[in-house]
Amino acid sequence: MWSRVALRHGRTLSRTFTSSYPKPYSVPDGPVGQNRAARLELAAAYRGLDLLGLNEGVSNHLSAIAPKADGNGEIMLVFNQGLHWNEVTASNLVGLDMTGQTVEGTGAPETTASCIHISIHKSRPDIRVVMHTHQPYATTLASLQDDFKMELVHQNSLRFWNRIAYDTTYSGVAYAFEEGERMAKILGDKDVLMLANHGVIAVAPTVSMAFEMLYYLERASMVQLLGMSTQKKMRTIPEAVPKAMFNEYMKRAQTYADDFFYAIYRQLKMSQPSFES
Amino acid sequence: MWSRVALRHGRTLSRTFTSSYPKPYSVPDGPVGQNRAARLELAAAYRGLDLLGLNEGVSNHLSAIAPKADGNGEIMLVFNQGLHWNEVTASNLVGLDMTGQTVEGTGAPETTASCIHISIHKSRPDIRVVMHTHQPYATTLASLQDDFKMELVHQNSLRFWNRIAYDTTYSGVAYAFEEGERMAKILGDKDVLMLANHGVIAVAPTVSMAFEMLYYLERASMVQLLGMSTQKKMRTIPEAVPKAMFNEYMKRAQTYADDFFYAIYRQLKMSQPSFES
Amino acid sequence: MWSRVALRHGRTLSRTFTSSYPKPYSVPDGPVGQNRAARLELAAAYRGLDLLGLNEGVSNHLSAIAPKADGNGEIMLVFNQGLHWNEVTASNLVGLDMTGQTVEGTGAPETTASCIHISIHKSRPDIRVVMHTHQPYATTLASLQDDFKMELVHQNSLRFWNRIAYDTTYSGVAYAFEEGERMAKILGDKDVLMLANHGVIAVAPTVSMAFEMLYYLERASMVQLLGMSTQKKMRTIPEAVPKAMFNEYMKRAQTYADDFFYAIYRQLKMSQPSFES
Amino acid sequence: MWSRVALRHGRTLSRTFTSSYPKPYSVPDGPVGQNRAARLELAAAYRGLDLLGLNEGVSNHLSAIAPKADGNGEIMLVFNQGLHWNEVTASNLVGLDMTGQTVEGTGAPETTASCIHISIHKSRPDIRVVMHTHQPYATTLASLQDDFKMELVHQNSLRFWNRIAYDTTYSGVAYAFEEGERMAKILGDKDVLMLANHGVIAVAPTVSMAFEMLYYLERASMVQLLGMSTQKKMRTIPEAVPKAMFNEYMKRAQTYADDFFYAIYRQLKMSQPSFES
Repeated sequence: MWSRVALRHGRTLSRTFTSSYPKPYSVPDGPVGQNRAARLELAAAYRGLDLLGLNEGVSNHLSAIAPKADGNGEIMLVFNQGLHWNEVTASNLVGLDMTGQTVEGTGAPETTASCIHISIHKSRPDIRVVMHTHQPYATTLASLQDDFKMELVHQNSLRFWNRIAYDTTYSGVAYAFEEGERMAKILGDKDVLMLANHGVIAVAPTVSMAFEMLYYLERASMVQLLGMSTQKKMRTIPEAVPKAMFNEYMKRAQTYADDFFYAIYRQLKMSQPSFES
Repeated sequence: MWSRVALRHGRTLSRTFTSSYPKPYSVPDGPVGQNRAARLELAAAYRGLDLLGLNEGVSNHLSAIAPKADGNGEIMLVFNQGLHWNEVTASNLVGLDMTGQTVEGTGAPETTASCIHISIHKSRPDIRVVMHTHQPYATTLASLQDDFKMELVHQNSLRFWNRIAYDTTYSGVAYAFEEGERMAKILGDKDVLMLANHGVIAVAPTVSMAFEMLYYLERASMVQLLGMSTQKKMRTIPEAVPKAMFNEYMKRAQTYADDFFYAIYRQLKMSQPSFES
Repeated sequence: MWSRVALRHGRTLSRTFTSSYPKPYSVPDGPVGQNRAARLELAAAYRGLDLLGLNEGVSNHLSAIAPKADGNGEIMLVFNQGLHWNEVTASNLVGLDMTGQTVEGTGAPETTASCIHISIHKSRPDIRVVMHTHQPYATTLASLQDDFKMELVHQNSLRFWNRIAYDTTYSGVAYAFEEGERMAKILGDKDVLMLANHGVIAVAPTVSMAFEMLYYLERASMVQLLGMSTQKKMRTIPEAVPKAMFNEYMKRAQTYADDFFYAIYRQLKMSQPSFES
Repeated sequence: MWSRVALRHGRTLSRTFTSSYPKPYSVPDGPVGQNRAARLELAAAYRGLDLLGLNEGVSNHLSAIAPKADGNGEIMLVFNQGLHWNEVTASNLVGLDMTGQTVEGTGAPETTASCIHISIHKSRPDIRVVMHTHQPYATTLASLQDDFKMELVHQNSLRFWNRIAYDTTYSGVAYAFEEGERMAKILGDKDVLMLANHGVIAVAPTVSMAFEMLYYLERASMVQLLGMSTQKKMRTIPEAVPKAMFNEYMKRAQTYADDFFYAIYRQLKMSQPSFES
């Protein structure tokens, strides 16, 4: 399985860096540097989503595939059970193999992290990052019965046009790989899975893109829910607009994501630099 | 009465510590240490709930049963009238006997604290912690007439399945023990009492579990109220799910609670260490 | 007019201090000290309401009657136009006479401050403090047409039972004394005036009590509006409860107010001590 | 085109400074000083709106016309793509000519900034500042179908009486000047353009006035949406009031705007002085 993951290795890590500002960190070439880069970015994602208020308790998880620091294949990085998101650092993330065993660092994530994240990574060799949250507006939207949809009522929803899958059957806390596999199947090749009675999952080839998707998903959901609370109809973006614009927008999507994520990264470097340790 | 309390002493204090990280404090053996541990945890709960925005003014109270530092029986620890929750420290908590007299430390809590908390502790020898707040979402939910229920619309509500009692008869500010006894009777053997026109009470054998319940009760109430504001039906978790999962979940509940509470504790140690004094 | 104000002088300033903790400041006897005390408390009220998010821009005003520092009669203290509430200090408050002329300190408040506040102080010799805000939940409640009432849906609303007057006729920004006099007439002998399309006014014999009323008015309005957004009926506290409890509650009201206000005062002393300068 | 802009130059920069407090910065005479003043104020506007939570991600833009520092004509100042609003400084703003080319400083804004802002500045020689945000309450209001209007339900909405234009046809992300020109045409001579499914634009002769308009637009929208969520009718300010008051109010509008904006400016000078560099 991880060999499939390995295949995509070169492509995603060699992606052109597109933000207008230089990367806020530098790493050496090779697996040690690539492992370090993934750890830095994933730790910044935990801290940044905490800053933005999109986490819940010490639950939910963000994961990224990275080369093992010793060069022997790949691992899934995830945070240790019992840490707050604002305590995550590059070095206290743990690396799991495909069976959920810790093979880099010490400790282990909470059970549901392995069950959900490993199953999704396995099923999606095109992505390297999985982020799962219970962010309130998107979660509420996911839990409505009749209008269980992100509507095209705001520009922010355009980016998700045809990119969201909906899981309408909540079947309990994910204590088994089967539950993760069920989610992965419904996700299919989409970017976002909205989980009824539960939360959301965003997947992407980069940390920055998954991070930015969660942010804009919440912003789009907020406007939709605020609008729905008035009981007035909302204007819907004409279907012609996303058809015409989606590809154009997606050409810039990675740049937009890098711009946002690395700006947050720089802010964290100023205010809580320990995350890089 | 306190003899009944004393009976449960050994069991709850000797509970296995289950969090993934070591306890953020250490105390000596014996009543001095057990008293100190209860004071540290309860002070951290006041500070932590203030951090999370679940308190109101300088009202509402959190209490815990602990051995008296001098080894002579047990007391109920609670904060002094007139302090803000962010001013509570381990040493400025006061210890009351079952009649509401201060027998450890100086000062006294506001009248309603004694009336509500002592009555509930007396009626529930299986718990050692009582937390009462006016947290806004849960309080609003408690004040609705026709849908005065926590619905199974989010995973966070599973933990409260069949564990909530409802007091639908608001009968005034609790200036007498009788009012606390009335509440205790309605609470019965549940974990949570939702008080119409008033607020919520959570009871647990540990500080961490009561703390975590209040947090998740608010999160579950928020999603339910946001959903209700749209006037759309919300999906309800099928009854089979909690039936199948509740016991499984409860096996891990103390660990989850410790993970969350001690993460907040560590955060307070960094940002406002005076609470341990 | 000010002679009437002078009459109440002794009573309100000699009130028994009721909070459980000592006053967080000390002043000498006589008009210099009484003037200083009023300035300290009013400056803390500006800073504290900013901390609680109940102000809007640099608009709205809080005022208090105090003896002039030179002992020659009384003045109305209010903040200077153009300051942010978080910039107010004891010494930059200005003292106005009954015509709105600055007679202590330098500068002048915004026009509407004089028009609203002086008119109300003149008409109410039993109070010494007027606070006017546009706090969002209470303001929204004040702007509803059919249910333009604080309902008895939460314990926090008990304190306002029969103590609120409603001005349903918005007649423009208050650029004339006539508008303030119109408001004063509708306020009558109540504690709170809810102004349709505008905001709220709270009046009290002490800074702490007006401060605390605004806070609890907002909390009560929040629960009512959150409840109303669900379109479900809310439980109403039976009329018998406030009848039985109001007097009992009011015996303790000044103590509750002092407890809350001086706790905020102490917090400000730690975090932004410049307000005392 | 810029010659038209130049024509208005003298008038707007020589405006009487009206706030009650001195300007929080000083600059030399001539284009170097005027350029510096515009950079300081625009940087403070980015930081201040971030402080107030009215920005979204690293998107949206604020722009101001200013003399070029070298005295050769005028430029449009705007922030660089990829910066967070809390990273903007006086010196990292870039100056564009009317074709969107950078002619002062280094870097370039995101494409939509040029397309929207340059088109509006060209069409409105009477203003020098354009601010575009996705602030949530105003954006939601702009996205409703049947009640797509700022109603006269709060005093804060008076300032916008007859001053808002509505663009009801969302036509995609603004990647072309034509889209900016379309917006400018709908804006006409108004102060605010509400963009369905998108956000808001405020234009003004000064930074402070555009800044203050966005703030009060959001406050007015918040009260209206909170009120609409109850499904109760809101009281509407009688049409006679704005007719009688609007001109009176507008005489003071620049002073109110300066008071608010320079208070925020002073706060930023204390808490994040780097914006002046």
